[in-house]
Amino acid sequence: MNSTFQYVGKDLPRIDAVAKLTGDAQYTDDLHLPGTLVGKLLRSPHAHARIRGIDVSKAEALPGVKGVVVGTDAPIRFGILPAAKDETALAIEKVRYVGEPVAGVAAVDERTALQALKLIEVDYELLPAIFDPYEALTREDVKIHEGCKEANVERRGSLEFGQVDAGFADADYIREDSFFKEAITHAPLETHVALANYRDGKLTLWSTTQVPHSVHRSISEVLEIPMDRVRVIKPTLGGGFGGKGEPFSFEFVACMLSRKCGRPVKIVHTREEVFLSHRGRHPMHMKLRTGVKKDGTITAVVFHNLLDGGSYGSYGLVTLYYSGQLLTLPYSLPAYRFDAARVFTNKPACGALRGHGAVGPRFAFEVHLDRIAADLGLDPLEIRRKNALQPNTMTLNELRITSCGFEECLEKASQAIGWEERRGKLPRGRGVGLAGGGYISGAGNAIYYNPMPHSNVNISVDRGGGVTVFCGASDIGQGSDTMLALVAGEILGVRPDAVKVVSADTDTTPVDLGSYSSRVTFMAGNACKSAALDVRGKILAIVAEHLGVAAEAVRITDGVASAKGCERTLSFAQAVVLAESKGAPIFGSGGYTPPKMGGSYRGAGVGPSPAYSFGAHAAEVEVDEETGVVKVLRLVAAHDLGRALNPLAAAGQVQGAAVNGLGEVLLESHVILPGGQHASPSFLEYKMPTMLDVPDVEPILVESVDPEGPFGAKECGEGSLHPSIPAVINAIYDAVGIWLHNAPITPEAVLEALRKRKTP
Amino acid sequence: MNSTFQYVGKDLPRIDAVAKLTGDAQYTDDLHLPGTLVGKLLRSPHAHARIRGIDVSKAEALPGVKGVVVGTDAPIRFGILPAAKDETALAIEKVRYVGEPVAGVAAVDERTALQALKLIEVDYELLPAIFDPYEALTREDVKIHEGCKEANVERRGSLEFGQVDAGFADADYIREDSFFKEAITHAPLETHVALANYRDGKLTLWSTTQVPHSVHRSISEVLEIPMDRVRVIKPTLGGGFGGKGEPFSFEFVACMLSRKCGRPVKIVHTREEVFLSHRGRHPMHMKLRTGVKKDGTITAVVFHNLLDGGSYGSYGLVTLYYSGQLLTLPYSLPAYRFDAARVFTNKPACGALRGHGAVGPRFAFEVHLDRIAADLGLDPLEIRRKNALQPNTMTLNELRITSCGFEECLEKASQAIGWEERRGKLPRGRGVGLAGGGYISGAGNAIYYNPMPHSNVNISVDRGGGVTVFCGASDIGQGSDTMLALVAGEILGVRPDAVKVVSADTDTTPVDLGSYSSRVTFMAGNACKSAALDVRGKILAIVAEHLGVAAEAVRITDGVASAKGCERTLSFAQAVVLAESKGAPIFGSGGYTPPKMGGSYRGAGVGPSPAYSFGAHAAEVEVDEETGVVKVLRLVAAHDLGRALNPLAAAGQVQGAAVNGLGEVLLESHVILPGGQHASPSFLEYKMPTMLDVPDVEPILVESVDPEGPFGAKECGEGSLHPSIPAVINAIYDAVGIWLHNAPITPEAVLEALRKRKTP
Repeated sequence: MNSTFQYVGKDLPRIDAVAKLTGDAQYTDDLHLPGTLVGKLLRSPHAHARIRGIDVSKAEALPGVKGVVVGTDAPIRFGILPAAKDETALAIEKVRYVGEPVAGVAAVDERTALQALKLIEVDYELLPAIFDPYEALTREDVKIHEGCKEANVERRGSLEFGQVDAGFADADYIREDSFFKEAITHAPLETHVALANYRDGKLTLWSTTQVPHSVHRSISEVLEIPMDRVRVIKPTLGGGFGGKGEPFSFEFVACMLSRKCGRPVKIVHTREEVFLSHRGRHPMHMKLRTGVKKDGTITAVVFHNLLDGGSYGSYGLVTLYYSGQLLTLPYSLPAYRFDAARVFTNKPACGALRGHGAVGPRFAFEVHLDRIAADLGLDPLEIRRKNALQPNTMTLNELRITSCGFEECLEKASQAIGWEERRGKLPRGRGVGLAGGGYISGAGNAIYYNPMPHSNVNISVDRGGGVTVFCGASDIGQGSDTMLALVAGEILGVRPDAVKVVSADTDTTPVDLGSYSSRVTFMAGNACKSAALDVRGKILAIVAEHLGVAAEAVRITDGVASAKGCERTLSFAQAVVLAESKGAPIFGSGGYTPPKMGGSYRGAGVGPSPAYSFGAHAAEVEVDEETGVVKVLRLVAAHDLGRALNPLAAAGQVQGAAVNGLGEVLLESHVILPGGQHASPSFLEYKMPTMLDVPDVEPILVESVDPEGPFGAKECGEGSLHPSIPAVINAIYDAVGIWLHNAPITPEAVLEALRKRKTP
Repeated sequence: MNSTFQYVGKDLPRIDAVAKLTGDAQYTDDLHLPGTLVGKLLRSPHAHARIRGIDVSKAEALPGVKGVVVGTDAPIRFGILPAAKDETALAIEKVRYVGEPVAGVAAVDERTALQALKLIEVDYELLPAIFDPYEALTREDVKIHEGCKEANVERRGSLEFGQVDAGFADADYIREDSFFKEAITHAPLETHVALANYRDGKLTLWSTTQVPHSVHRSISEVLEIPMDRVRVIKPTLGGGFGGKGEPFSFEFVACMLSRKCGRPVKIVHTREEVFLSHRGRHPMHMKLRTGVKKDGTITAVVFHNLLDGGSYGSYGLVTLYYSGQLLTLPYSLPAYRFDAARVFTNKPACGALRGHGAVGPRFAFEVHLDRIAADLGLDPLEIRRKNALQPNTMTLNELRITSCGFEECLEKASQAIGWEERRGKLPRGRGVGLAGGGYISGAGNAIYYNPMPHSNVNISVDRGGGVTVFCGASDIGQGSDTMLALVAGEILGVRPDAVKVVSADTDTTPVDLGSYSSRVTFMAGNACKSAALDVRGKILAIVAEHLGVAAEAVRITDGVASAKGCERTLSFAQAVVLAESKGAPIFGSGGYTPPKMGGSYRGAGVGPSPAYSFGAHAAEVEVDEETGVVKVLRLVAAHDLGRALNPLAAAGQVQGAAVNGLGEVLLESHVILPGGQHASPSFLEYKMPTMLDVPDVEPILVESVDPEGPFGAKECGEGSLHPSIPAVINAIYDAVGIWLHNAPITPEAVLEALRKRKTP
């Protein structure tokens, strides 16, 4: 099927790989401007306190200190979502978590800056602090934020589709379960860094951000500088995973300090500061109630979710919405009710992390489903097959499903793990498990309301045959620059490894909304395709004229333009020369706006996403009943990504996401201790899986060829996280007959469950 | 007249001024890549020698040396002009001047690199060397280059227009004079620097070049790397003046070494190496014969010119052509013959320097004309008025004159200096002098034959209202980036100081042929205007639709779009949002190709330039008859630049050029001693005027409003050099009654002339 493509479907090493290997790649902290000051943030030692006053005079008087800023210097609120602008650059009236930035200092060196922080006197009035979301629900006496209608509930969400009560009435069997998914954090290898340079009314900010456009808008608003005087550049980025996906205090403070001092200011987060900044996975307290027929056909589902949001809104609205809306994937549910609340607690705010919103619910539902299967004596594979979502359907909650390779994922994952031969048939202590999943390919709605494209691409072509793609999309390590080169190369008929990509610089690249919600390949890819078609159209018309053939007859293959039945050919560069000889440079533009996707939910006319990915993972585990230690021996990750534009990169994304999931199920906990201190604010304490902790994940790329995605491609790097967690838990049941409802699992929890287990 | 413009005609500080003042601006030597090696060139100690062999083994064996390259590693010839590709990256069979690069070394530090140079053993066979151009004409036994048909004559040029013999027959008076103009060199404050990085088949070169496109093409040819794998970037440049206007040995060698070593390589020229690289003014040995009527009307001119080209072709063909063709400016000549030869000598090659080609001839002709006036008892102002070129004429040598403000320049310069009151009326030792001039505004023909635009511009517009201009033009300190911002701002109705300019990067900016021949404002300005009109058209149509008015009714003024009779307005950013809401980013492209300019000279159908600038300078001098020292007390520089887009910048260019001219007449000599050693290879020895050596030049901007130039603009920064030299020499005659035919003048020459003078 891929034979119609020149480059799509073939392995393409990253175009930035050599630069990263040689050290040519410039990360933000590699940048230096003459006279750059060191910026540092003073952070709150209290989880909840009123700020009665801040005295910076001693800090300002310290030789070498060039400027100090506090919250009142920039009181305008910001937030990644227009509906949740509840942050300020620095705390003004209150601090709401341990680590919240209260003041910023710029000094000639780090030592002086740190010394200055100690000289800032903050007069705090301690307030009662809340660390438990259930407590947050009821403590009307403690208001972490003013304006919550109900105690500390930031937001509730309630949705009902179909006849839920009738569904349960119709069920042969009903099961209820509770689950808890602990927070994890992103832990990118590169910490957050900003270099700001305010000169002559213009501001340039280099920052480790996944969302240069949002940072551009927010900096402009908060610092009250027109957008056309602000430039935001994302240099090479050392990992995002959602953790650099919104404007942060340090970005504003670097800018404020630079404006105040008249010199460039760089702020580099320590590892501890990255942990304190967080914005990672929401802890979720979940309840599921599901009715099924005897054969496993689902008749109704009710899902309750309490999200512990931490101290600010961040992406939480979306987390809550995704957690409910995406639960219906990848199964066909006839009736569904969802009730959720996101509450504030005095902890670092939670936000978006790879697999955003759907990780907890997917873990819960897939284990819940296995329990139902076990109760009814059904094969977990079979119950999934029976309820599997089909292509070209609309879910009851109005997700427009176009391509859908879920069944193929189920088949391929189960075959690869040897489901038939191994499920229930392995020696005691060994077991296999299966789980499904589904995710979005970008959001149908822009992150702030606007009628413009979600992604834009410009392409210029040089008379030497060079092709340069300009796009605001942020390569955060996921390889989006390489994807853009591939798409442009495919359309233009030039080798993708020769295509240059300029990305994520608000002065030179057109807007892309950012790297979140698995939108970049789908949306920037489509925009790039459109821009490349624009360029190709201009060139082909002129080549056709030159060769005396119809434009439709001209093909460009590996840099050579030719036409059927015409002996003459032109190199791509020669074709460009012909085109440029008409009097102007060769240039193309394209934008991508998701289509109106039918459905009428709340009048929006759009579902969450223009396309959905699907997946099924199968795990084989070994449980040590003496120690409680679980070892994952194999993980097969089948993922329907529509089309593997670059199988090498896609496989890497699937493997990376699955390993992330293995970390979530086996090791990772981002926990704030009572009192507000971080339990594990360093890599010594925060346990992520290393290469030695996980098996080689076996990726299986399933190509359902999406009608809307670029060349049929859909999401790949997030949805392939979800099924890992329940697949492992379900495999543990197969191995030793215990059910674990909390993730991550711990040896203690395994031992406890083994103790409580009835004889299997 | 300028009231129809928003920004054109108003002083605009350079958009890069703050960056240069603060140190934010990155010059090539400010750039660093990890693992960069230090590159050094071994230069010939001989002026003319055969290379029998080069042994680099000892150098290669020195610890810390990572690579050595020699000429045979890259034997393909290059040269800025396709008709004179006579150079190789490193000398192969012969060296032709002292300082010619013979080998390149890359090492871990400078000390090691320099030590390695000493270990390279070159086996030279000395050849007779020629340093005198007259000797070069006749020494058939010494062939500096093979293939010269006649001794060492690189090229002869002979042109005749009108009836020259008849013109002389018709003359009442005929005068012959000989003149000599010595070489000067560019002496930019920043020396030549290249940083090359070859990685994975792709090469990036950051270089101090005025011609990134030519370097791009040449690197691709010589290193045999496709153009689409080569990127050339000109960082902030510290002065060019023509001295960085062609591909140089060090650029190729840095690339060769990087490819060989697999690491970045930087080569930084010492000041001495810049002197040795030269490519500056050709020494010219000139003879003029002119016939006039009694009233001063010119009847015929014959001009002989012997150009000492040094060792290579460089721009010499153009120098020779300009020296003859542009002599006819700014006067109306009925008959003209020109005979010239450019010869090779064993000196650093001469090339282009500010005022290229026309400096020597203009000096000669303007003094010659004053002598004729003196002989006939005519006023030098009057003889110039009488013969002055008029607008909208074709010169006899087929220069298409459109706008021409020469007479206005004459009037204004003479009035400003107080000509009527002072000429011939000042105390002994004081005098005033006048001279005219004219120059091109870019070349009519591309520097290599191609049918594409000479300059291209792309403009992208951001939804925040930001405007970014992409152009290959090189800002070499002359302010072309600011010009592009101004032109785009004027057309789009946004403040030019907010317009961003990305320039001179072959990956991201469309081709401009380079900064030479005073082409940038005219050509890149026109391309930018065209691209901005493209953008404006897209925006206005949509604004008009929104406001319900005709597109022609919409104006954008200082960032606000409005229409007559319509109360609603839109900010520029809002207008962009409307436009982008149609589904693609807002983008425009434009190119500029000079028009076919009539005339049939040699069938080219184009004269040298699409427009000509004109000027007249008036000087007042004081001559110390005891010491021979001449002091310029005032210099008035009237220059017809068509339109002063940015009077602040234009005045700076006129002043800078005039000061350059004062250096040429009073101080500067770039002399190679017999034997081939440079007479003054440092700033201790090479005398350039400092601020204390020259008066405040008084610029007078004359606006003739050219029909083809952007907003009527023409050349400004080169033509305003020419008249300074003869104006001073003519003033010296007025002061003390002596004629000086050699420039620079020296106190010795003044004293010698005073001794020989008849009583005035």
